[in-house]
Amino acid sequence: MQFPSKLVEEAVLEIAKLPGIGKKTALRLAMHLLKSSAENTQNLTYALTDLRANVKYCKKCHSISDNDMCRVCSSINRDKKTICLVEETKDVMVIENTNQYFGLYHVLGGIIAPIEGIGPSDLNIDTLLQRVGGESEVKEIILALSSTMEGDTTAFYLSKKLKEKGIKVSSIARGIPIGGEIEYADELTLGRSILSRIDYQE
Amino acid sequence: MQFPSKLVEEAVLEIAKLPGIGKKTALRLAMHLLKSSAENTQNLTYALTDLRANVKYCKKCHSISDNDMCRVCSSINRDKKTICLVEETKDVMVIENTNQYFGLYHVLGGIIAPIEGIGPSDLNIDTLLQRVGGESEVKEIILALSSTMEGDTTAFYLSKKLKEKGIKVSSIARGIPIGGEIEYADELTLGRSILSRIDYQE
Repeated sequence: MQFPSKLVEEAVLEIAKLPGIGKKTALRLAMHLLKSSAENTQNLTYALTDLRANVKYCKKCHSISDNDMCRVCSSINRDKKTICLVEETKDVMVIENTNQYFGLYHVLGGIIAPIEGIGPSDLNIDTLLQRVGGESEVKEIILALSSTMEGDTTAFYLSKKLKEKGIKVSSIARGIPIGGEIEYADELTLGRSILSRIDYQE
Repeated sequence: MQFPSKLVEEAVLEIAKLPGIGKKTALRLAMHLLKSSAENTQNLTYALTDLRANVKYCKKCHSISDNDMCRVCSSINRDKKTICLVEETKDVMVIENTNQYFGLYHVLGGIIAPIEGIGPSDLNIDTLLQRVGGESEVKEIILALSSTMEGDTTAFYLSKKLKEKGIKVSSIARGIPIGGEIEYADELTLGRSILSRIDYQE
């Protein structure tokens, strides 16, 4: 792609570094900013700078938060006996949206991925073990990690550590999505859903 | 969507103002910036600010340019008798990529759209008429505008103005794309491609 100017080229290359955005989309976005008011671009860049510089994380669960303690951790209405373990704050948002979970969370900040050089010490594992140790009232940890090799490795590693402390470790159910047709399910999921079948409830 | 913090919410709302980006994608992008280095966000915001504040337009054709005169206008190898009329600099880039056009360009900066309040005076029409008037060597204007009602209106308006000056006005060919199958062509395009059929060239 030949760019009409260096400024456009640099903007496009920077925008195209974002995940899922190619050069064509980046060019469209750059041209959009040029056509709309200068204030628009300013608001966008200020919001991004502010986000990156001033974001806070909950001291307890490491979820993104406005304060030292997030909404969930500081609520008196949550079940403090259960912690749901997730990779990212995004996962907390998604689970909160279900309105089906009333316990606490713990954000790992990633997943054990040796190939990318991410080991247990890079994740929020120490603070998790602190939360469940000693006088803690936590009885159960629900693993809600990705269903990938890295996710399974992380789950295995953590379940061993947690069981040593006498904590019940469970995992979210894997199976055919509600509304999903069996015909179109992948074999791995379908096989797993048969192995972990549950009693039929009328 | 309930956001974990005000900063995330503001960033997501600003990103989602970009065309074709919804709140879910915006959240993914914001989270990506948070996970990658602070330098990444800085490079992005600097590039956008720089683009918006310092972009230059060619004094002759109004295309985005690094200098007062763009690469095409200042080249001695271009055919100065032909001007291709386009809406945006993006269109110049696309036509340049074909390597089939060696004339000059003129960027209108939009299209006549009464519903959006865009009239002829909001576009670079005066400078176009200056470029073809008087001692000018321009012989032909090729209209390469969108094939929409607004595009057709603009083409009609301009062709009248240009023909008054004795300039030849042509339009890029509309028809079935090369490699396109007749079966899947829309009726309007197919109909037009029959009406404007050309002599078969062996």
